[in-house]
Amino acid sequence: MMKKLFVIKIGGNVVDDKEVLSAFLDKIAAIDAAKILIHGGGKIASAIGRKMGMEPNYVNGRRITDAATIDLVTMVYGGLVNKQLVAVLQSMHCNAIGLTGADANIIPAKKRPVADIDYGFVGDIQQEDIAVNNLQILLDNGMMPVMAPLTHDGQGQLLNTNADTIASALAVALSASYDVRLIYCFEKKGVLDNVEDETSVITLINKEKYRQLLEEKKLADGILPKIDNAFAAIDHGVQEVLIGHADDLLQNTTANTIGTLITA
Amino acid sequence: MMKKLFVIKIGGNVVDDKEVLSAFLDKIAAIDAAKILIHGGGKIASAIGRKMGMEPNYVNGRRITDAATIDLVTMVYGGLVNKQLVAVLQSMHCNAIGLTGADANIIPAKKRPVADIDYGFVGDIQQEDIAVNNLQILLDNGMMPVMAPLTHDGQGQLLNTNADTIASALAVALSASYDVRLIYCFEKKGVLDNVEDETSVITLINKEKYRQLLEEKKLADGILPKIDNAFAAIDHGVQEVLIGHADDLLQNTTANTIGTLITA
Repeated sequence: MMKKLFVIKIGGNVVDDKEVLSAFLDKIAAIDAAKILIHGGGKIASAIGRKMGMEPNYVNGRRITDAATIDLVTMVYGGLVNKQLVAVLQSMHCNAIGLTGADANIIPAKKRPVADIDYGFVGDIQQEDIAVNNLQILLDNGMMPVMAPLTHDGQGQLLNTNADTIASALAVALSASYDVRLIYCFEKKGVLDNVEDETSVITLINKEKYRQLLEEKKLADGILPKIDNAFAAIDHGVQEVLIGHADDLLQNTTANTIGTLITA
Repeated sequence: MMKKLFVIKIGGNVVDDKEVLSAFLDKIAAIDAAKILIHGGGKIASAIGRKMGMEPNYVNGRRITDAATIDLVTMVYGGLVNKQLVAVLQSMHCNAIGLTGADANIIPAKKRPVADIDYGFVGDIQQEDIAVNNLQILLDNGMMPVMAPLTHDGQGQLLNTNADTIASALAVALSASYDVRLIYCFEKKGVLDNVEDETSVITLINKEKYRQLLEEKKLADGILPKIDNAFAAIDHGVQEVLIGHADDLLQNTTANTIGTLITA
């Protein structure tokens, strides 16, 4: 049997609130297995950008990463947010090591080609080039990689990459060596049967159920890409994907009592 | 015989100039031995702080690190400068991994007690607690730690620590396992016999020569603490310390043809 690995993605709603964050990190520190944390930090980046006179630039809901913005997110994601997470985790005796995808060449990427929109310094992950062996060296020696959502192009340029995508790419890359549970923490309690009703969490979605939900048009626009991502990860070796609220998800990390479990 | 390790500190004059930096990193990447790079970034931090409406606060030539400043230097040292160095080194096929002293608990420190001056969030390194084993795991697996001048107190607080001090602390900590050459790159060609004459580099200083230079009052105020540091490192196991200009120092990393070599 392969060793268990938790790949946990936390979003802005967790990172932005110091109390929520501390309680959450406590739970992460207590997980007695190999683990990787991936974080965002968009709101903090926007706030610091504004202090520097920069307004965030979005097209179709996606941030455009110009030269000033890649510097900003390198500071905020790779520096401020990442290192504060590491310092707090270390205070909980969790041997965190904060990294970007450039460090130890963990996540090589390609700058997204300009089509209708020029997203700027945004990186699309080169899945087959992920430095699994370097990650394993850290994991096997009891370290917990804390990943900022940054990659690099191998030519000296850092790139901005979606944190959800990094989480699933790492989960897939490590699924050959570990029994991987990918956990997406977001602001809802899970995938909801009725978007209006926070208690209507669907506890299990397999492919059969997925087809059924699609037919019934039950899945809101916001959740659909997450579920698509989840099945993509499962199709590429990830054991299971759990989607739900940060407060609930880590209370029971080995069974599925809370949130939505997605399996083949 | 122990393996060779180069511990190289670069100052602001190298980091701030992109062309100088690139040529310098090329030389570092070419060193065929274990190596650690320690960088500063004070000028960039001050420039970005100004954009955010912060004026650097110095007392007796030392930066006071208040709450806003520790966030600023965490962003700039731990994020912007550190990750840009890593990305460039990776493009030169040098397996750099950018870290602060909080990462993998590498450099535990204590917040400096308030005496006459409150330096704020400044850390004094706890030499005996340096996580030598974690550094060795990285080095033994071909990774090159790139260290930002930040430490942590083990209670979740990041601290600002002088990069020269970090370099010598790491050199000392690793001297039990490696044959360590500590290299300080600064803006002069070495220790000068005559401060007015850039060509008057003293090529070798041992303790005898040091006493003699002190008696003759030949050592300028700026260089004295560097030489004191160097001998402190040598007294604690470091093989040799080389002080000089970044352009020259790495041309010959195994012999001492350029700069000032300091030995017992």
